[in-house]
Parts: sequence; structure tokens; C-alpha cells
Amino acid sequence: MSLSTTHASAEILCIGTELLLGEILNSNAQYLAQRLAELGIPHHIQTVVGDNVERIHEQLRLAQSRSSIVITTGGLGPTPDDLTHSALASYFGVPLTQRAEIVTDLEAKFAQRGRVMTSSNLRQAQIPEGADILPNPVGTAPGLLWEAAPNFTVFTFPGVPREMHAMWDETAVPYLKSQGWGQQVFHSKVLRHWGVSESGLAEKIGDLFTLTNPTVAPYAGKGEVRIRITAKAATVKDAEALVNPVAEKIKGIAGLDNYGADDDTLPKVTGELLKAAGQTVALAESCTGGGIGQQLTTVPGSSDYFVGSVVSYANNVKQRLLGVSASDLIEYGAVSEAVARQMAIGVKQALGTDWGISATGIAGPGGGTDDKPVGLVYIGIAKPDGTVTVKEHRFGGTRGREWVRWVAAQAAIDGLRRLLLLEG
Amino acid sequence: MSLSTTHASAEILCIGTELLLGEILNSNAQYLAQRLAELGIPHHIQTVVGDNVERIHEQLRLAQSRSSIVITTGGLGPTPDDLTHSALASYFGVPLTQRAEIVTDLEAKFAQRGRVMTSSNLRQAQIPEGADILPNPVGTAPGLLWEAAPNFTVFTFPGVPREMHAMWDETAVPYLKSQGWGQQVFHSKVLRHWGVSESGLAEKIGDLFTLTNPTVAPYAGKGEVRIRITAKAATVKDAEALVNPVAEKIKGIAGLDNYGADDDTLPKVTGELLKAAGQTVALAESCTGGGIGQQLTTVPGSSDYFVGSVVSYANNVKQRLLGVSASDLIEYGAVSEAVARQMAIGVKQALGTDWGISATGIAGPGGGTDDKPVGLVYIGIAKPDGTVTVKEHRFGGTRGREWVRWVAAQAAIDGLRRLLLLEG
Repeated sequence: MSLSTTHASAEILCIGTELLLGEILNSNAQYLAQRLAELGIPHHIQTVVGDNVERIHEQLRLAQSRSSIVITTGGLGPTPDDLTHSALASYFGVPLTQRAEIVTDLEAKFAQRGRVMTSSNLRQAQIPEGADILPNPVGTAPGLLWEAAPNFTVFTFPGVPREMHAMWDETAVPYLKSQGWGQQVFHSKVLRHWGVSESGLAEKIGDLFTLTNPTVAPYAGKGEVRIRITAKAATVKDAEALVNPVAEKIKGIAGLDNYGADDDTLPKVTGELLKAAGQTVALAESCTGGGIGQQLTTVPGSSDYFVGSVVSYANNVKQRLLGVSASDLIEYGAVSEAVARQMAIGVKQALGTDWGISATGIAGPGGGTDDKPVGLVYIGIAKPDGTVTVKEHRFGGTRGREWVRWVAAQAAIDGLRRLLLLEG
Repeated sequence: MSLSTTHASAEILCIGTELLLGEILNSNAQYLAQRLAELGIPHHIQTVVGDNVERIHEQLRLAQSRSSIVITTGGLGPTPDDLTHSALASYFGVPLTQRAEIVTDLEAKFAQRGRVMTSSNLRQAQIPEGADILPNPVGTAPGLLWEAAPNFTVFTFPGVPREMHAMWDETAVPYLKSQGWGQQVFHSKVLRHWGVSESGLAEKIGDLFTLTNPTVAPYAGKGEVRIRITAKAATVKDAEALVNPVAEKIKGIAGLDNYGADDDTLPKVTGELLKAAGQTVALAESCTGGGIGQQLTTVPGSSDYFVGSVVSYANNVKQRLLGVSASDLIEYGAVSEAVARQMAIGVKQALGTDWGISATGIAGPGGGTDDKPVGLVYIGIAKPDGTVTVKEHRFGGTRGREWVRWVAAQAAIDGLRRLLLLEG
């Protein structure tokens, strides 16, 4: 068995000048990286080169020196710049041979689509002598699977993602499993945190970063901090048994800053808490313009607890629909603790909900002053008992208007989540 | 001048275990590839490695052997797995030194956000001796610009795309131009269209696709069709002289479907039309949950024409705040032409604006029926004269809830734009 599962690793080689010109996003590398991780195949390097024989040869030389599997994408089409199979043949010193079964398959596919096969399509039937064909169930270009040298196996896939995915699932995975891969799985859980900095959380759980199975690593998301815990084991269940105690430990340390894991979002977990409490919420939005409601309603079924909003961008809407005091608007300004308080209680009363949440702030880029800089946002929360808490946030002016508005919306939802947990 | 523009080429080295695990898509490589192409800098290879000193060293060795510029992304954060600058220092055999100006900058940024800087953040102030700092105007981590060896220059950027883009534009480009790059410029204009399919528009302007300078290429954006016109010339002005006549020709053919170019957005161009007309708008949102207002208020200064919204997710809010008839809600349902009409006129009256826009629909994934499938959205527009038009849209159910909600919000704004142009 050449694909020894000890001391083996795979690398990804994406071939295509369009990638070097930035014309397309390399989603194939991400797809393959995820699939390799699932099968537990170590993967340390990804490379992109253009449609150039010398550079493909150079990368094959490097790949052979450091990996036992190379997976290529791209360069399998019918045009002269599609060089992958011919470059492989010349690198390994074997001829290209036309395979009758590919010709038959191509003819059938063209006939089925009512199109005429041209001579250039026959290029796709030529693969290096000794290689096995990796059939393409959804497109024309087949790939190959080739133990091209001792302890060095080549897979080639077309660049079209849909075709590559089908070929991976239908042929590469069964082959890799037959070679002993997928016995060990990598399984990750991502913990999600709001209201804490990456460095702040990392310092609290720093001793866990030295673990080796599972490993623990922090990374920053959009305004949030994620901690990834990854274990390697024989089965997903065994890996979970390694991951879960560490996850519970981190959750315990993070406390309320941890809002969930994996696909959880603040709107989703907050919605679940509202649903469990049988409570409803309404919003009074100013600087966010509707963004808090937009976020809350990303969750299917949010109509169970989200009743509606008043977006009071103009002051007279704050007065007329939310009952904000005209004199307070003059005395304290629209961006103030007093106005946030009145907006929250005003919308709770106007829409008859258990909770009322408000946001008023300065999103920028203009409109900031020394006293009230860009990024200053007041978030008010009127509780079921009619009391209101207002929190002042300073999100800063360097990351732009849309960042301020987005984190303000998230922070408003997070504020509700915390109160639901503390008072629920 | 070390960055000789003859025999020079750049390569991209993206650093991050999260890329090898497939957790994030490598959009940075695409961004940098596009920017290098614009400046005419040859670029033959892209590599991804994990947060591992030995592998980073090995890639630096390869890069130095074949390229004169290496551009890295990632690994500049405050945690121990952020290794880029320390790996560069050890590879080139120089110490890391703490730079006072970075410390000062970090302290100011933390103070502005009302957060406390931790000792781990000081890691970000340590860069290899002899390297110049590449300031980060929008985040904490600075990069570097370093002629680390004869004819070998290193640029480092954080992995956060927004920060990387700002740093590229503000510091890397001026530096590269000062070194003689970008003498031949590639200049593009992107025309933006809403309400037409890619194939539909392509058929009308198909003869332009054979042009060579400028080139004309269509591509699909999120719900919209973009046409990119690219010219190569000695100066931007010369390139514009090639691009602009073709752009005018396409605009003439596209008519109202063309809404703008380059950084234009539907909220921006529609806002400009409202401002020019001295008119105001209010929104009555249901399925979009606040998303139309969120979109309209992406534009700084939108308070000049956007007054506010009523998000009437629950039917009783439609009745109480918008005056929608209870019997029509029962007879026609909340997702109906009749309700969209009453919502639009209701919010125009309640908020006292010139225009009132409504959206009510089925975002999915549940809630669809044969009669009213997922993706059905009614958009109502109440005009200054008090008449209302309602348009039925069918956005389909295959692309998911967020897609339906997003295109519905865009379509609502586009509907207003068309009426402002036709009746303005």
C-alpha cells in the first residue's frame, strides 16, 4: 500500500493563470482542505501556479520531496492552455495515451447534450500511461488517480467546483478510505464569544493553548472571538469525548461572554432564550437604521418573539411614535442616555412587548465631536418589569460606518441575551 | 533600487492554519493577485502554509530563490500562534525589536475603544530590526516593508481583509510606484445593473466582448450584473479615454437597468436622486425585518431624506401603526398586493413623507404554499401624489432566506430609483 497512513501528507496544487490574475476566488483549495481534514489526512501546504509546464514541473518536484499525495485542480479542459495531464506525463517520463473508455464517455455526453464533439475535446481523453481514470459524473473532463512514483500519488480534478466536488465524493473518498485513511478523524468545535477581546480571553485560558489533543487556538471573527478546539481520534464520537470537556472548561472560564458554538449566532441563541421564556421583543432603532431587526429576523421562525420595530431616524419620529421628550432631545441630544432610555420604553409600550431595545449613536464618518465621538452608541433595554438599563458603548471611528452599525446591532442583541440569562 | 522592474516578480505567501483547515476562504490571495496585475507586477506563485516556523522558513527560502518580492498575509495578531514577524526575524538572523511608535499607536487605539491593552498586545509592537513599519489605519496589527536581503523585499499584512486592503492602498501602492512599478496602468470601470439577467444584457452588448483594448467582460454580482471595461495605457487618463466611450455606449443600451458604476450602490444613487428632488422616504417592512432601512442608511448623510421605518413583523403592528385593514389581512393574507399597498400608504401618512415603500413576502425556508411560494415578495411604493404601485416579485426558493431578503431590499430601493428617474 503506497498511501501509507504513517508519515504521509497531502498537498494541494491549483493550476490556472486565472487564479494568478485574481479573476476567480480559489474556493477549490478551501473545499479540498476541509475534506482532507475530515479524513484526517495531514495537509501542510497549498500552492497556486499558472498554466505553465516548467512551473508545474517545479511544483511537482517540491511536492514529491515533501508530501506523499498531491491533489491538483484545473488545467483539464480541451484548450491548449490546459496542461495538467501533459505536464504530469512529461514530469514522470511516460507518454500520454488516448483512452478508449474516455472517448466513448465523451461521445455519449456530447450526444446527450445535442452537441458535436470537436477534435480538441479528444485532448481530454489523453492521460499519462499507467494512470487510472477518475470519472467525471457531471462534466466532460475526467481526472486521474495515479501512483506515479513510490509513495507518491497524484489526483487531478477539473477546476469547475461542481465537477470537482462530485468526483471527490464519488471516487476519491472511497479510494482514500480503501487505503486506510479516514480511520482517524479530525473533529473541531468552535466556541463563540462576544464582549471580550481576543487577547483578554486568550490570557484567561492561555494554559490550554499548549494542549496537543485536542488543540486549542483563538481567532478573531467579525467583532467576536472564536476559540477552536480540534481533536484527532478514531471516530467523531471519540474526538467529541476529547473536545467536549475542554469546551466545557473554556465555557466556564468565559462565562457570559461565551454565547454559543459552531453555527450559533447571537440572533439565534437570543431568539431561543426569548422563545423558551415565552416573551416578545420590539426595537427602536436610530443609527442602525433597521439593522438590529434585520439581524434578529435572519432566524426562521423569529416571528414567534419579534413583533416589530420603529426606526426613528428623524427626531420627530422619536417624538411622535416613541414618545421621546422634545426637551430632552434638545437638552441631551438624540445620542444620549436619556433618549436611548425613552426609545426603549417607548417602543415596548407602543408595540406591547415584554422587552424593548433601543440603539442611538454616531455611526460616522461625520457627525462626531470631542464629547460624542464617532462610534459612541447608547443601547437601552426596557425589561418586562418596566425598568430600563442603558449601556454606553464606544466602538471607535477607525473601522468605518458599517462596522459601527454592525457591532452596535450585535451588541444590542447581546445585551438582551445577557439579561435573559441573568434574569430568566 | 532593489525592486528592479526588470526580472522582478512577486509571490504571495498566506500564513494561517485556519486556511489549511479550510475554515476560511482565501480571499486575500485573490485581492493581492488583482492588485499586482493592476500594477503590472509579474506574479507566478501563491502559497499557503500554517502557523509553523519551519514551514514559514522553508517558504521564505523558496521565495527568495525565485522571486524578488514576497507578500505575506496573516500571523500578525497578539497570540502565540501569530508567528510571521518572529519567523522573518529568525530566518534573516536579526533580532525582533519593540518599536515605540507602534506601542504609542496601540495605546491610542485601545484608549479610543475604551479597552485596556494587555501585555500580549505588545507582541504586535515587535518587528525585525531594520524593517520599516507598514501602518495599519483601521486595525491594531501593523505590517512591515523590508528590504531584507539584496533584491528581496518583504511586505507583511494582517489576515483581516479590510485592514489588508487599507494598508495596501495607503502604503504599499505608493511605495511600489516609487520603485518604478505601475508605469503601464490597467484601469477598469465596472458598470452596475439591476433587474436584468447576465445573459440578457450580454446578448444586447455581445459585439463589444471582442474588443481588445479596452476589454469588456460581464460577471454576475450578488443579484446584479456587472460589466467590467478594462484598458491598458501609460496613464489613468489615457486609459479612461479608452474606457469611457465604451461605458457610455453600454449605458445607452442598458437604459434604466444601469444604475451606476464602480462604487455606486442602489442606496447611494437612489439617495442622491431623493436629495436632488428634496424629497423624503419612509419604509414599512415585513419580511425584510429592517433590511431596507439598514441598506438605505449605509449612506452617510441619509438622514437628509430617510425619516424612518415601521417594521411590522406581527400583523397587529401592521394594523395599529400602519392602518392595514384587519379584514384584508384575513381575506388576502399578510403577503398580498392589498396589504403591500396599505403598508406603503400607511407609513407615508404616519411619518409624513413624500414616498412610502413597503415589502411583504415569504422569505422561507418554511411558510411557502403552491399559491404563495417561498421567494414571493410584494413591494409597494406610495408616490408623492398619493397613488400607490405594487409589484409582485418571485425570487425563488433555492438560494435561501437571506438571499430572498437581500434582493427584496435591493429591489425595493431599485423600484424607488426607477420612479424617481421616470417621474422626476
